[in-house]
Amino acid sequence: MEGGNITYAVIGVGAVGGYYGGLLARQGFDVHFLLHSDYHHVMNHGLIVDSTDGDFVLPKVNAYESAADMPSCDVVIVALKTTQNFHLVNILSHVAKPDSIIVVLQNGIGIEQDIAELVPGRTVVGGLCFLCSNKVGPGHIKHIDYGALTIGEYVSGYKPAGITGRLESVSKAFQAAKITVRLSENLGESRWKKLVWNAPFNGLSVILNATTDKIVFNDALRSLSQDIMMEVIHGALALGYNIDKAFADQMMTLTEQMKAYKPSMMLDFEAGRPLEIDAMYWRPIYEAQAKGRQMTAMRTLAFQLEFLVDRRQT
Amino acid sequence: MEGGNITYAVIGVGAVGGYYGGLLARQGFDVHFLLHSDYHHVMNHGLIVDSTDGDFVLPKVNAYESAADMPSCDVVIVALKTTQNFHLVNILSHVAKPDSIIVVLQNGIGIEQDIAELVPGRTVVGGLCFLCSNKVGPGHIKHIDYGALTIGEYVSGYKPAGITGRLESVSKAFQAAKITVRLSENLGESRWKKLVWNAPFNGLSVILNATTDKIVFNDALRSLSQDIMMEVIHGALALGYNIDKAFADQMMTLTEQMKAYKPSMMLDFEAGRPLEIDAMYWRPIYEAQAKGRQMTAMRTLAFQLEFLVDRRQT
Repeated sequence: MEGGNITYAVIGVGAVGGYYGGLLARQGFDVHFLLHSDYHHVMNHGLIVDSTDGDFVLPKVNAYESAADMPSCDVVIVALKTTQNFHLVNILSHVAKPDSIIVVLQNGIGIEQDIAELVPGRTVVGGLCFLCSNKVGPGHIKHIDYGALTIGEYVSGYKPAGITGRLESVSKAFQAAKITVRLSENLGESRWKKLVWNAPFNGLSVILNATTDKIVFNDALRSLSQDIMMEVIHGALALGYNIDKAFADQMMTLTEQMKAYKPSMMLDFEAGRPLEIDAMYWRPIYEAQAKGRQMTAMRTLAFQLEFLVDRRQT
Repeated sequence: MEGGNITYAVIGVGAVGGYYGGLLARQGFDVHFLLHSDYHHVMNHGLIVDSTDGDFVLPKVNAYESAADMPSCDVVIVALKTTQNFHLVNILSHVAKPDSIIVVLQNGIGIEQDIAELVPGRTVVGGLCFLCSNKVGPGHIKHIDYGALTIGEYVSGYKPAGITGRLESVSKAFQAAKITVRLSENLGESRWKKLVWNAPFNGLSVILNATTDKIVFNDALRSLSQDIMMEVIHGALALGYNIDKAFADQMMTLTEQMKAYKPSMMLDFEAGRPLEIDAMYWRPIYEAQAKGRQMTAMRTLAFQLEFLVDRRQT
C-alpha cells in the first residue's frame, strides 16, 4: 500500500482525526474528511495544526458534511468519540468498500469487535493513540506532546493476530506521513494496557475536577490510581492478557513527567459533550465480570460519572 | 441508677451532645457540659434546643471551658467528633471516676475499643444516634427528625455483651429524659449495621456535593450505594456479624422517605471541619482486611475524601 494511489477517509476531525488526518494530507495523500459542526469553517479556512513538531496549515482539504457525498475509500480512519459510534452504521455503508481497511483510533475496550460486526469481511485495525492534543477551535488542532500510534489487527474475539501484511501496509503509509507507528501482535492486550492509564486518570479527573498532576502528586489519589491500575491488570489477566505489574509503575512515572494535562474525558465534560463511560468503564467491567472478575473501583467511578452526567443534563 | 443523685458529663455540645445533654438537663438531672468555642456564649445565653418535639431553652447550664474544672461524673457522655478524640486522654483523666460509665455517642467502627484502652476498668457503652440534628449557632441546636438511641455495652474485642444491669441503668436514666432507647446485645454488630447507611451517604454526599435525596433518587448513585451497602454487609460478615441483606433495602427505603438531608460529613466538609474518614472508612476497611475481606468501593471513597480534604487545606 502506497500513499500515492490510496484513498483515505477520516471520520471525525477532532484532536485525533484532525492531527493524524492532517499529517496524512500534508504528506500529499488523498484524504477525505467527514466533518460535522466545523464543515463550513474548514471549507472556508482549511485545517490548522499547531504542533510541537512544527505548525502547519492545509488551506484546502477535501471536506464533506455528509458521508453520502464521500467516495468510498481504501482506508477508513474512525476518529469519532465512541459516544458517536451509533452514526457508523450509516457512515460506513457509504465510505467502506468490500476491501477497505478500517482503522479505529478510539479509546476503550471492545470497539473493534462492534465495528467488525458492522462491516463483515473487512479488515479492522485498532489504533491506540499516545497523543496529547486538543481541538482548540473549528478546524484548529493543538498538538501538545507525544503522537505515537500503536496499531494491531482485530481478529474475532480479540485472538492474537500477529503482524499481518495488511497491518504492515497501514504502518508504512502512516510512517510515510511522519507518524511514529508501533505494531501490536495482540490488539486486545494492547487495549487493556492502554486502559491501565485511561481508567484512573480519565474518571478521577472528572469526578474530582483534577488535572493529571493533581492526581499523581497527591498521596491519596496516587494510591487510588495504583489500586485502579492493579484492578485493570487483574481484569486483563482474567481475559488472558498478562500485563506486567511494573507497567503500572511505568505509567505513574510517565504521568509525573507529563505537563499538567486534562484527560480527554475531562475535556469532554467541560465542553458538555457525552463521556466515554461505556467504552472506558462499563465494557471492561462486563468483560472481566464475564470471566468471574469483579472490578469494584471501576464500578464506583463509573456510577459516579453517570451521576455527574445526569446532573449536568438536568 | 436514678437521675436525681447521678452526675452527668457531656463532652462536646454539638448536634448530638447538645440535643441529648439538653434533654437530660431539662429533666432536672445534674449535667455538666464541656464546651470549647461556644463556652462564653452558653454562659451568657444558655443552651437553646429547637426540636420537632417541642422547643426549649436552658437559660443556665453547668458549663466548663476546661475539663480540669469539671467534677468527675458518674456518667460521661462522649459526643465529640471522632476527629477530636485525641483530646480524650486528657479530658477523661479529669472527668472519669473509677466507677464511671462512659457512653460514646459517635459514628464509626472501633471507637469504644480505643476509649476502653484509655480508661481501663470502666464500663464503656456505645451509643448509636438515629438523629437528624444540626448545630445552627453557638449553643443553638436544631433537632429536625428522629432521635432514638441504640446502646450496647462494650466488651473486649466486641464480644457480644448481652443486656447488662449497667446498660439497663443507663437506659432508664435516658428514658426518664424522654429519649427513646433501644438496647443492643451485640454492639459490634450494631456499629456495622449503622455503617450500612453511613458509608454510602456520608462519602458520596461530600465527593459529589449531593444531599441524600440526590443520591437515593439517581439511578447510578442508588446502585452505587447498594454496592457499598453490600460491601459493608460482607465486611461485617467477615467479622462474624450476620446482617440480613434486606437491611440494605430497608435503609434505602428509609432514606427515600427522609427529607433532603445533609449527612454529618457533608456538614463537616462545608464547615471546613475535619472529616471522620478514619472512623467511618479506614477502620472498617482495615478490620475487614484483617479478616481477609477487601472493601474496594470503600477504599475508593476514602481516597477521594482524603484528596478533597488535602485540596481544601492548600
